[in-house]
Formats: sequence, C-alpha cells, structure tokens
Amino acid sequence: MFYLGVDLGGTNIKAGIFSPECQLRDKSSAPCPQTDDPAEIVVAICDLSQQLLGDNNIPVKEVRAMGLGSPGPMNLKEGLVLKAPNIPALHNYPLGRKVSRRLGPPVLLENDANAACWGEFTQGAGKEVTEMVFLTLGTGIGGGVIANGKLVHGWKDEAGELGHMIIYPGGRLCGCGQKGCAEAYASASNIALRAMDIVRQDNQASSLRAVLEQHQTLTAKDVFDHAGQGDRLAQSVVDEATDVLGLLCVNVLHFSQPQRIVFSGGMIGAGAPLLEGIRRAFQRHIWTMKSETLEICFASLGSDAGLIGAAALAIDAYN
Amino acid sequence: MFYLGVDLGGTNIKAGIFSPECQLRDKSSAPCPQTDDPAEIVVAICDLSQQLLGDNNIPVKEVRAMGLGSPGPMNLKEGLVLKAPNIPALHNYPLGRKVSRRLGPPVLLENDANAACWGEFTQGAGKEVTEMVFLTLGTGIGGGVIANGKLVHGWKDEAGELGHMIIYPGGRLCGCGQKGCAEAYASASNIALRAMDIVRQDNQASSLRAVLEQHQTLTAKDVFDHAGQGDRLAQSVVDEATDVLGLLCVNVLHFSQPQRIVFSGGMIGAGAPLLEGIRRAFQRHIWTMKSETLEICFASLGSDAGLIGAAALAIDAYN
Repeated sequence: MFYLGVDLGGTNIKAGIFSPECQLRDKSSAPCPQTDDPAEIVVAICDLSQQLLGDNNIPVKEVRAMGLGSPGPMNLKEGLVLKAPNIPALHNYPLGRKVSRRLGPPVLLENDANAACWGEFTQGAGKEVTEMVFLTLGTGIGGGVIANGKLVHGWKDEAGELGHMIIYPGGRLCGCGQKGCAEAYASASNIALRAMDIVRQDNQASSLRAVLEQHQTLTAKDVFDHAGQGDRLAQSVVDEATDVLGLLCVNVLHFSQPQRIVFSGGMIGAGAPLLEGIRRAFQRHIWTMKSETLEICFASLGSDAGLIGAAALAIDAYN
Repeated sequence: MFYLGVDLGGTNIKAGIFSPECQLRDKSSAPCPQTDDPAEIVVAICDLSQQLLGDNNIPVKEVRAMGLGSPGPMNLKEGLVLKAPNIPALHNYPLGRKVSRRLGPPVLLENDANAACWGEFTQGAGKEVTEMVFLTLGTGIGGGVIANGKLVHGWKDEAGELGHMIIYPGGRLCGCGQKGCAEAYASASNIALRAMDIVRQDNQASSLRAVLEQHQTLTAKDVFDHAGQGDRLAQSVVDEATDVLGLLCVNVLHFSQPQRIVFSGGMIGAGAPLLEGIRRAFQRHIWTMKSETLEICFASLGSDAGLIGAAALAIDAYN
C-alpha cells in the first residue's frame, strides 16, 4: 500500500510516493500548465502521478490515497478551491473530486501553507513538539498553526493568515487592503520594494543604487547581500523587517503559545543574519514579567515540506 | 451523580452543583480568605462546597469530580498554581491535589479565563459554534481560544494572553513590561488611567474634571457614562479603546479564524456604545480583499460563566 503527496504551485507541480510510514520513495515534478481550463490542471496532476507510479512499477490500485496541497482559499470539506491567486483557472473548482475521479484513489485537499506546516511538524523542524507555528517568507507571508497537535483550520478554512496580522496600525498599505500588515514590511517582495522606495526617494549613499540602476529592480536577496557587506540603507530595511517579524513572534506567543516558531520560504536563504535579527527583535519586545523560552528556528525540509505534509495528512485520514 | 464547579477569585469563591448534563442545581459563594497560608484557601473551598452539598442533601461521595477555575499562571498537568496575582498565598501550590485530598472527589484545575471561556462556549454566547475566541475586559484583558472545538492551552498552559498582543509597538507601557499591549489601552483600569492622564495634562474642557476633583480618581464607568453624555474628552478615550479592540479582533481573525469573538467582564456593562464601537473599528481595519462575517458579541452567562465552565470541563474529563 502506498500514498501520494502532491504540491501544486503556479509554476510547478511536485509529486512523491510514500510508504504508510510516510517515507518518501521517489519524487518527480512537471510544469503547471498555464491555462484557463481547470481540467488541464487535473490532467497534469494525474499524468505526473501516473508516470511516477509507472517508473516505480506501482499500480495505481495500490495507492490508498493522495494528499494534495494547493494555493487557497478553499473549502476543505467540499474539496473546493475557491480562488488561487497564481492559478487563475482554479475558481470555485472541485479539484479534489476531479483528481480523484480521474486517477482513482480518494484525494484529501489542503491549503499549501498548511501542508508544508504539517510536513515540518511531522518530519521536520517541529517533529519533537505538539504546539508549533509555521511562517513562510516568500512573495507574501503565509502561515500555519498547530495547537493540541492538530492543524487549526478556522471556521472557513482560512486560519493562519499570519502575514496579515496588523503590526503598525495606519502603516504601509498591504495588497490585502489593510494598513500595516506584517507582510507589508517583511515578505521578500516587500523588502525589495521598500529598499527601492528608499533608494529612489533618498539621497543616502547605498551600494544598492548601482544595482537598481543596472537592473531597474531589486530583490530581497540583493538587500540581504548588501546589508551583509555593510551597506547602511540595506541594513535599515533588513532591521525593519526583522523587527516586524520579532513583533509578530511576540503576538503569536501570546495567542497560542507554541513551543517553536518555524520560518520557511525562499527568504530563509538569507541565513543567520535573518534568524538572529528575528530572535533579537523578539527579545527586545517580549514582556519582562517572566522569561520566555520560545524557540525560533528555520524549517528543515526545504521544498519537499509540501509533498511530505500532504502525504502525511492523507495517511492520517486514510490509514 | 453530581459535579461541582468552583470559581476562585481574589475577593470571592463561588461554587455550584451540577447534573451530569451540566445543569446548575444550586450555587453559593463565600469570601476568599485574605491570608498568606494556602491551606486556608483549601479549607475555604472545601467548606463552601460541603455546605452547598449539605444544603442540597447530597453526600460528597455522590460527587464524581470538581472543576476548579483559579487565577494563573499554572501547570495544569500537575494541578499546580504557579502564581496568582490577586491571591499571593498561591505560589507553586498544588491546589488541585490539596482540595481533592481534603474533599474526596478528583479535582480538575483550569485557568479562570479558560474556564469562563469554556462556559460561554458550551452553554452561553458560543454554544452554536466550534471556533471561538473569548476576551474578558476587566482590570486586565484575559482571553481564551477554542480551536477544533477544544481549548488551546499552549505549550506551558499560557496561551490566550490576548491582552498582551502588541497593537502599537513602542506605545504605552503595560504592567507586563511590554509597550503598546492591547491591555494598556483598553482594559477597564487603563481606560480610567488614560482619562485621568489626559484630564490632568490637558486644558481641554471635560465633565470628567469635576468627578476627578471630587473623588481623586476615575473609573471606566465614569468614562463611558460621560462619553454617553457627550463629553468629547471621554469619547476620545472610548474611541481609542474600541479602536484597539477592533484591531485586536482583526489580528485574532487572521490567526485562528473564529466564527465568533465573545467579549466578557465588567466593562461590557457599558453596553451598545462599546460593542458598536468595536464592530465599527473592526470594519475600518479589516482587509478589503474579501468580506468577513466574523460575529463580535457579548457574553451571556454573566458571572456564572466560570463555575459553569469549570463544571463542564470536569464532566468531560470524568464522565
């Protein structure tokens, strides 16, 4: 008996075959079709899965279930993707049911950030704890919350929108329409935008100016790299972002008191300066009433977290 | 078979007898002894319980269990009160075990805010929902979180410290040592303090000035009353508090996405101006990306919520 874990993204689809103990046996990936027709997405997921099974000489009837992580928001009970910002074809679409009907095994749908959170919780940076919060730092800031050893989905499957917790009321306008969200200061794309704003508006000397003039844009990686090389403007943008993430950790601690907050996503490539910056900001802002032992760390499964978590959820539901 | 629910406070101890269906049959209360000796607290809880049982002709051996709500923080597994700000006698004290040993039935200890939260969730303002957040507005701001139909205790039984979520980084100093906590703006005592500060520092005309001169102090009730009578200074303090509570609701929604946020505590006596103020502030700050249907309402069990919740938890644990 085997399980499939699938991680659907706007650019790529990743799939893995798992044992009932959630050991990854093999994995593969394929481009996500750029299309308006949701049926093409279903075909692509099923083709990738069948090919992977074929390569491993596993007949599809030996697959007990598939876990499928997808961008959201979604209605999990109905297996419906309501809207997927990077996959416009998926709009009020019963993705779970369609994949199941075409491939065979039952499909358990989950939000992609929650799937990655569950992967880290069961096999990665959170595997020794029962209370964990997960934050992904990418274009936006996504989140997942584990309380009492279970994912918190919320009333309408939209819990864990931690990047949209307001840190500075009346502050920077976020894409969501709120002002002062954590995401508006500390996601990879907003760190880059913030640096570009300051370089353009300010006469302050900065080694980022030449990069911006050459490429007409900056990335979060540029900002972290130049901060690391001593550029003060870049460092001020990094400091602002880590301060916001430290404040977010304070608020997370007071809400669900996790033992561990796990940061994930492309931005953790910035390494120790990011992690140490967040830890220092947390210590600066946390209460003095008692000492806290919250662990703030990086994810350990890399880009496989989503597949692993999706498979682990399917194993729990269909064992 | 019967159950006891007890709500221990710094001023009073309340106790109730409950059926296995958690129907309140009778209740009573007694002053909490002002003492340094924790054994006197234990005796007072047991005496009150025994008298209540006696009045109802119920022998103690017909009591299956007691639920006991106490100020915290605490270690629930060990039945230990670590520290109770208003009951200094309780310091690293095994309150649950001591009461159980003296009275007979097993005792389930719970944080008082969590007990009241569970009472409202099972029999009060939250009884139709599975995802709820509870906020008590009193001297401080306490909280309780229900996710997946269960209380979220956190790693060290200190989840739900929602009054210490930071709303204005660098803002008003809170008693906890942080700056800009929700509690520093919106608890009953801080609303009164804020109004006193402004009356004293400012030349602005206010009907609160005469009250302050007469009593040398103000209460949150004074502030709400004078705001209701059109005093602009009082209204500005109320507006600031409701704005902070609306922002807190936004952050709560994005964390665990409850269907309902239930406000409780003495301050809800302020009625519609408070509730409508919080709802308007929520609408002002919440994202425009999608419409939200979060319900913000007042608790419905009054001061019995704590007993009821404590009993309900004991019934769940020892049925």
